[in-house]
Amino acid sequence: MVDTSKMVKAKVWVLDRRPLGEPTIEDFKLLEEDLPPCSDGDVVIAAECLSVDPYMRYRARKMPLKTTMPGGQVARVLESKSPSWRVGQYMVCYPGWRSHTLVTAKELKEGGLGSYTPLPDLKDFPKSTGLGVVGMPGNTAYFGFLELCQPKSGETVLVNGAAGAVGSAVVQIAKIKGCKVIASAGSQEKCEWVKSLGADHVFNYKTTSVTQALKDAAPDGINCYFDNVGGQFTLEALPHMADFGRVSLCGAISTYNDETRDKGQLVANSPFDAGLIITKQLRVEGFLVPRWIARWMEGLNQLKQWVVEGKLKYQETVTEGFENMPKAFIGLFHGDNIGKAIVNV
Amino acid sequence: MVDTSKMVKAKVWVLDRRPLGEPTIEDFKLLEEDLPPCSDGDVVIAAECLSVDPYMRYRARKMPLKTTMPGGQVARVLESKSPSWRVGQYMVCYPGWRSHTLVTAKELKEGGLGSYTPLPDLKDFPKSTGLGVVGMPGNTAYFGFLELCQPKSGETVLVNGAAGAVGSAVVQIAKIKGCKVIASAGSQEKCEWVKSLGADHVFNYKTTSVTQALKDAAPDGINCYFDNVGGQFTLEALPHMADFGRVSLCGAISTYNDETRDKGQLVANSPFDAGLIITKQLRVEGFLVPRWIARWMEGLNQLKQWVVEGKLKYQETVTEGFENMPKAFIGLFHGDNIGKAIVNV
Repeated sequence: MVDTSKMVKAKVWVLDRRPLGEPTIEDFKLLEEDLPPCSDGDVVIAAECLSVDPYMRYRARKMPLKTTMPGGQVARVLESKSPSWRVGQYMVCYPGWRSHTLVTAKELKEGGLGSYTPLPDLKDFPKSTGLGVVGMPGNTAYFGFLELCQPKSGETVLVNGAAGAVGSAVVQIAKIKGCKVIASAGSQEKCEWVKSLGADHVFNYKTTSVTQALKDAAPDGINCYFDNVGGQFTLEALPHMADFGRVSLCGAISTYNDETRDKGQLVANSPFDAGLIITKQLRVEGFLVPRWIARWMEGLNQLKQWVVEGKLKYQETVTEGFENMPKAFIGLFHGDNIGKAIVNV
Repeated sequence: MVDTSKMVKAKVWVLDRRPLGEPTIEDFKLLEEDLPPCSDGDVVIAAECLSVDPYMRYRARKMPLKTTMPGGQVARVLESKSPSWRVGQYMVCYPGWRSHTLVTAKELKEGGLGSYTPLPDLKDFPKSTGLGVVGMPGNTAYFGFLELCQPKSGETVLVNGAAGAVGSAVVQIAKIKGCKVIASAGSQEKCEWVKSLGADHVFNYKTTSVTQALKDAAPDGINCYFDNVGGQFTLEALPHMADFGRVSLCGAISTYNDETRDKGQLVANSPFDAGLIITKQLRVEGFLVPRWIARWMEGLNQLKQWVVEGKLKYQETVTEGFENMPKAFIGLFHGDNIGKAIVNV
């Protein structure tokens, strides 16, 4: 007989329907499930805060329907039969959009980005920064910018989505490295924050044309372009690249809800014009942050140090309630968040 | 009084009208001019053979009208008042589409790709190879492929325009480096020649879909893509890239006659999809071969050695008559040439 009194109920968001264009609440479904019992070597964890990120839109295009939406969370150990974990300890992990999770002994041992790692000691900073500036978005900025753009002191850097979790970190890392920074965001409030982070030129792409802004701010051309947005922004930005410019292609959020892509159609509608890439001798490189998994802690330690020293500031936009995961996620595409979008359970 | 008996008459092709779409004979105009007298330090040269190359279409978009079409030639010294050059000596130089040229002492001293350099000792090979396999197209293949694609032995390489001057060299260099080579060209005759150069898979893109050809020939993906063609070819090729694939963007001949580009319109119609570049973590890099000017002779010496050893084969398509320069040039866009397109004066 199973002792149902100890059973843990988990809430789980699954992808119920394939998004076509902008995702809607109805594309997701909230389920409840009983976790299996915690066996030798296993732990049961409870999410305290979860991350919503634009990349999830990409995953939603190909992941099997009726399966759990992917994503990271900071979780507390509720029950432990593992010698490596004690009850009450915090971890950063990627079980997806789940309130509670049974993690098996085998899963706990697995490496890679999906591994279960202790939350870094974040001093007085909120635990949620382990999902943001001292987490995957932080490392996305750190490695994606420094490794692919190879910025030199004095060079001009362009960052869009600059009030986002990744973009705001890139702005500040570029300043730490001695670059001139041109940044864009989608509201006056966001632009003011980005300006306060040290960006040299900030423009609101909703009220100022990219072409005009860059004509004024980058008369000698852009050496490094960290692109989170793609689409029309990049189309207008590319002619302003300097010879031998480097583009770190992190994301293209302006295109994620493009229906032709959802339908898997092969359409030549990219802004990365071959003629410009050739004549300006540009290097355009895409990345997924797990490629630097072997250097993961190097990045987090550096980011944490900068945060503690006050050189790397951050903001969070917190949505309360696990039931609001889809709402917070969809909000990403409306620019609802300043800094990292977090959902508190 | 000027001694007109010694005056040299030069024939010169100028760009008379801005091409819109495919260039026509009427876009060019043949002029005759009297060369100024040969002063101290100067030389007078006579072109023996000239090069027509796709890049000239690009130049025609922005160069001033009524000025000389740019390009390289192998020329013989007719008259010399320079201590560095003797009458009868051959040089490789870039005075443009001209039958005869007065080169001043100052011009002779200038460095860079436009410099006046002695024709390498090509043994029994025709002098025109100094414009092809042991010239700029050879170095375009050598540096553009090796430096940007960084091919490793055993990797899969895709080359289009593979029966052209550059493509045919890339095919063979990739084989020398131990790669598996997939190549495409636009006729059965061309495909047979490319096959004879050692390519593992060759397809005629006019009769076989790129998608199907690559599905069959590159089931594990393409590591290195040397792109001369762009457009629809690249649109279909990109989904077949392997993770961390490298694209060396040499040219995009399929788009050079695109009127929207002639009009300078900013249109998002590139095949280099950001989503593919990100998820496959591709590196796409464009180049102009003068970036390797400091290593120019390294390339030519290696190419010459391979040619002498029989490891690097070439073909030429020769058009007779300086008056046929525009015809030979326009033919490039119809795939008229196998190997290097040369015009004999």
